[in-house]
Amino acid sequence: MTKRLSPSDAMFLYGESKEMMFHVAGLLLFTRPPRTHPDHLRHLMDDLRSDPPPVHSPWNLRLRTPDLLRNPLQSWVEADSVDLEYHVRRTALPSPGDERELGIVVSRLHGHHIDFHRPPWELHLIEGLDRERFAIYVKVHHALVDGFTAMRLLVNALSTDPEDRERPLFFSVPQPERVRAPREPREAPPEPGGLHFPELLATVRAQYGATKTVIRALRKVITGEDDLVTPRQAPRCIINARISRSRRFATQSLEIDRLKAIARAAGGTLNDAILAISSASLRRYLLERDALPAEPLIAMVPVAVRAKDDAGGGNAVGAILASLATHQSDPVKRIAEIVASTRHAKQQLQGMSKAAILSYSALLLAPSMLQTVPGIAGRIKPTYNVVISNVPGPDHSLYFRGAKLEASYPMSIPIHGQALNITCNSYAGRMCFGFTGCRDTLPHLQRLAVFAGEALVELERAVL
Amino acid sequence: MTKRLSPSDAMFLYGESKEMMFHVAGLLLFTRPPRTHPDHLRHLMDDLRSDPPPVHSPWNLRLRTPDLLRNPLQSWVEADSVDLEYHVRRTALPSPGDERELGIVVSRLHGHHIDFHRPPWELHLIEGLDRERFAIYVKVHHALVDGFTAMRLLVNALSTDPEDRERPLFFSVPQPERVRAPREPREAPPEPGGLHFPELLATVRAQYGATKTVIRALRKVITGEDDLVTPRQAPRCIINARISRSRRFATQSLEIDRLKAIARAAGGTLNDAILAISSASLRRYLLERDALPAEPLIAMVPVAVRAKDDAGGGNAVGAILASLATHQSDPVKRIAEIVASTRHAKQQLQGMSKAAILSYSALLLAPSMLQTVPGIAGRIKPTYNVVISNVPGPDHSLYFRGAKLEASYPMSIPIHGQALNITCNSYAGRMCFGFTGCRDTLPHLQRLAVFAGEALVELERAVL
Repeated sequence: MTKRLSPSDAMFLYGESKEMMFHVAGLLLFTRPPRTHPDHLRHLMDDLRSDPPPVHSPWNLRLRTPDLLRNPLQSWVEADSVDLEYHVRRTALPSPGDERELGIVVSRLHGHHIDFHRPPWELHLIEGLDRERFAIYVKVHHALVDGFTAMRLLVNALSTDPEDRERPLFFSVPQPERVRAPREPREAPPEPGGLHFPELLATVRAQYGATKTVIRALRKVITGEDDLVTPRQAPRCIINARISRSRRFATQSLEIDRLKAIARAAGGTLNDAILAISSASLRRYLLERDALPAEPLIAMVPVAVRAKDDAGGGNAVGAILASLATHQSDPVKRIAEIVASTRHAKQQLQGMSKAAILSYSALLLAPSMLQTVPGIAGRIKPTYNVVISNVPGPDHSLYFRGAKLEASYPMSIPIHGQALNITCNSYAGRMCFGFTGCRDTLPHLQRLAVFAGEALVELERAVL
Repeated sequence: MTKRLSPSDAMFLYGESKEMMFHVAGLLLFTRPPRTHPDHLRHLMDDLRSDPPPVHSPWNLRLRTPDLLRNPLQSWVEADSVDLEYHVRRTALPSPGDERELGIVVSRLHGHHIDFHRPPWELHLIEGLDRERFAIYVKVHHALVDGFTAMRLLVNALSTDPEDRERPLFFSVPQPERVRAPREPREAPPEPGGLHFPELLATVRAQYGATKTVIRALRKVITGEDDLVTPRQAPRCIINARISRSRRFATQSLEIDRLKAIARAAGGTLNDAILAISSASLRRYLLERDALPAEPLIAMVPVAVRAKDDAGGGNAVGAILASLATHQSDPVKRIAEIVASTRHAKQQLQGMSKAAILSYSALLLAPSMLQTVPGIAGRIKPTYNVVISNVPGPDHSLYFRGAKLEASYPMSIPIHGQALNITCNSYAGRMCFGFTGCRDTLPHLQRLAVFAGEALVELERAVL
């Protein structure tokens, strides 16, 4: 099988550099099955070595010309063999094996480039986590599978039955034809509801076709030749600087019912509550660094909306800009401004045709897309300060060979000019926040996660 | 301070690519001090965080233009600050924490690129090693400090006194002026006796000046325009292929007295015994893969010899080619051929002037030097199959804050066309072999280490 890359997938290879790495990842936390030994992951690895399971598409695909990533004829070919000892790895946490050590280890793993001479994915079995837990970190390059689909494939390989001990690993699960081969350029994401920032970028780019066309179109937008709505100008902020090679990842998980109660009290949505939590956290972090802009930070939020002209009832991919009201010290006023801002932005989008939604989204995303153009990266004034996405997941508990999945955190892609990404996955009643950032541009990024936890309590006190 | 790189140091930046990484490393194994807790390394890290010690030259130097490695005006500048939490890291071994898991972890660490935006070194404190041990892995880019000097600086930071618990880490030890700044081009290595392959490469290259001159000179040599002694042609072998990004490292430590007894019985030197061990191991490894050439493998062995015309009694850097007699199944005949071969090669070198020794060495090294030239890499017939070096170390026990150093293994640089490097360090009565190779070109490389241990017993039975 040989399959050309779609222009939107190829884009993630174009951008790849020493500092920008277009892989996404999932960090899954499990509780060990009852009556198992702390090193039970070792047996899993021994089994893989002695009796290698099959590796199904797309996990057996590699690039045809890995030494020439920008080859316009780049395509996916089946690898002659997949060396599972390379792709599946054991890692251990230094003592005391707490969340902090886990954060350090996965931050390092996320800062290593994918080897394009092999199928571009890695699975890390992480032992030594406290409270009888272990973790799985799965990394996949966005040119092979988008983060949304990857998360779905991962989740599909888990079981709802705690007694099911035979479940194959995700790469050994045959996929239905539609996800088997890397996707075609498409206009809408696979499912409505939520999508990652990179998908939005790719979808919008696909609309514009190949790279040169995009850049031409975007130049027009930026120079004002295009007469679309001008987006709000975001304030300058330390988040919007060039990035280094190093990553920092931090997590927080909050009860969805508590977030919903806040949303209800503020007359907003669950997403508004997520934005309010993120806002409070960012405000404290920036204040601590004496770097809070006087103007409110602007978040870019990917949404799926029903377009005015879509008779079929399908969803269009859109992006809205929301004020995070970070200039407001009062949490009540802050969430009220956020709710008003997202409502207004969504109304604006709903009045548009499908084509207009895409053009408008392209306008918002233009600066990020230009970050992949050499010489421009990290030197454009941002139209937004941070991307905050929310990807819905399963609402019931899942198991991997008897081990209960406790949380599922998404890790995304910082780029020049966007040193922080906040993505959330919902899982079994909890909202799992993943803060992925550049370790050097945003020192002590893990405080964002701590502050997010404290923001929930603060918001409850203020609005309930 | 700003300091231009010497041409020989700059060479290691020229060659840096996705697959070729010009960093060297040391893997030091320690026994935990008595009455200490398994996680005592954690306190060391906590101390570094709460009260960062000074970082002395050269460990505080970074490249002036890290984004343009090949800048002809490249130089070292003092970093504004050195982020010790980046450079000093904790790592843990998965269960059961044996030599195999240690080998896997350090192989991965050795396969990651150095970040040139910072001083190009890393120190990893490795816990979870069995038998109350821990390990330290120190990586440094060869453009900053050569492997020989790095090993000396590391060893200097250790103590001969087991009660000395205050010893600073190597980067906090002020260095005498001569090693403070990265070295000037020089004609001889810092000390006679042993030197790493990269030093020899650098020294020979320094003699020829800048890169273009070297390439011109080497082309003459290769095309036969230069009338120097033609080296023996090495047979084609799987060792001499292109490499990937992944590394595999394996170790073996053998008693020096046993090696010396074999050398005496065979009428050779300690170095001959090292070659005989390496030969037996390579022979078995290649036989197992059905890839043993009919002709004997040729080793390149860096040596320091007294030149005919050097009145000052100084040493010249030289390279000899030795037959490893891998075609011989009889270990007695094999070591006899090795002894005869090295004796002949050294005699040849000793009859030369200093200039001739350098020219001859350049001839031998030409193929390796050309590996850094794009388009040529990995496509030249080798004049030798493998580099085997021996670097003498201290003969007495050393301690790090009460922890006894048990072994000190050197990790070197595989390049295209030379997928394996064997380097030995002597320490406290033992010869520590480090086998550094490309994981993909030489699968199951760790068997070389196992076979080396068995070769010692076989040789003893045969010659004693």
